Amino acid sequence: MRRIISILLQNEAGALARVAAMFSARGYNIDSLTVATTHDPSVSRLTLVTFGDEAVIDQIVKQSRKLVDVLEIADLTTRAHIEAELLMVKVAVAPKRATGLHECIARHAGALLTDTDDATCTIRFAGSSGEVNAFLAELESVARVLEIARTGTAALERGRVVLMPAA
Amino acid sequence: MRRIISILLQNEAGALARVAAMFSARGYNIDSLTVATTHDPSVSRLTLVTFGDEAVIDQIVKQSRKLVDVLEIADLTTRAHIEAELLMVKVAVAPKRATGLHECIARHAGALLTDTDDATCTIRFAGSSGEVNAFLAELESVARVLEIARTGTAALERGRVVLMPAA
Repeated sequence: MRRIISILLQNEAGALARVAAMFSARGYNIDSLTVATTHDPSVSRLTLVTFGDEAVIDQIVKQSRKLVDVLEIADLTTRAHIEAELLMVKVAVAPKRATGLHECIARHAGALLTDTDDATCTIRFAGSSGEVNAFLAELESVARVLEIARTGTAALERGRVVLMPAA
Repeated sequence: MRRIISILLQNEAGALARVAAMFSARGYNIDSLTVATTHDPSVSRLTLVTFGDEAVIDQIVKQSRKLVDVLEIADLTTRAHIEAELLMVKVAVAPKRATGLHECIARHAGALLTDTDDATCTIRFAGSSGEVNAFLAELESVARVLEIARTGTAALERGRVVLMPAA
């Protein structure tokens, strides 16, 4: 099962490495991970997506909570949440297929041509993981993908619930 | 100086933890980090943003290159590149200030209202780090920020250059 875990971290060297090690020690691959500071510069927020056995992930979450730099941790998987990620993708532009490629970009809300030369172009796209995958698949049907950088998923719980450092 | 490092990683448990540990062992805080799979499912691409002494970061990059899971590593800082990140932000909606808030969202290309109830709303915004910071500052002038999840920066080199696993 796909799991989305949100973690508030002390913004300190080593905090991220310790959390990542907690997952890899159990052989759990991290499908995607994003981490950046919040509006409190001393606190970072990490969103981690992983697949695996529920009981084992529950255990990792419990153990991560005990790490000194972990201020709070929440499993958003079963809560109502919004998630999104950003894709940057560079494709080869063949003259014969350029129209199809530009049509594909133009047809997608959230898609933006950010760089172009005579042989390649780079597109930015924001959406849920599913939307990003669907956009990529469509793009691959009209152009050759050269290079991809995905941010991975960021997520917030819906409504007024806020993830706060545990007291 | 702000540095943007791109790394191609074997998509394996532990690879991310080892790279993160390489930075924290030298006391280097990671400002943001994004990692997700590429179009080759066995390869992940990681984008890491850090600040610090150039010589020390050069050394960390050299050492990271020797890690078994690191397929390629490039410092995009001094090369022409495109970068972007995604912000998700939840704000409190005060009835008196709702118009100003909605105007602020509507005025920004790339900003999208993704969730709303009678007291809060959640906005998604894509842009460069500078654009995200500017949008956040404007948002904070019209509403109270409750919660933030930023993906951190993803980046690609401009033009036809492609980061490939070293032969």
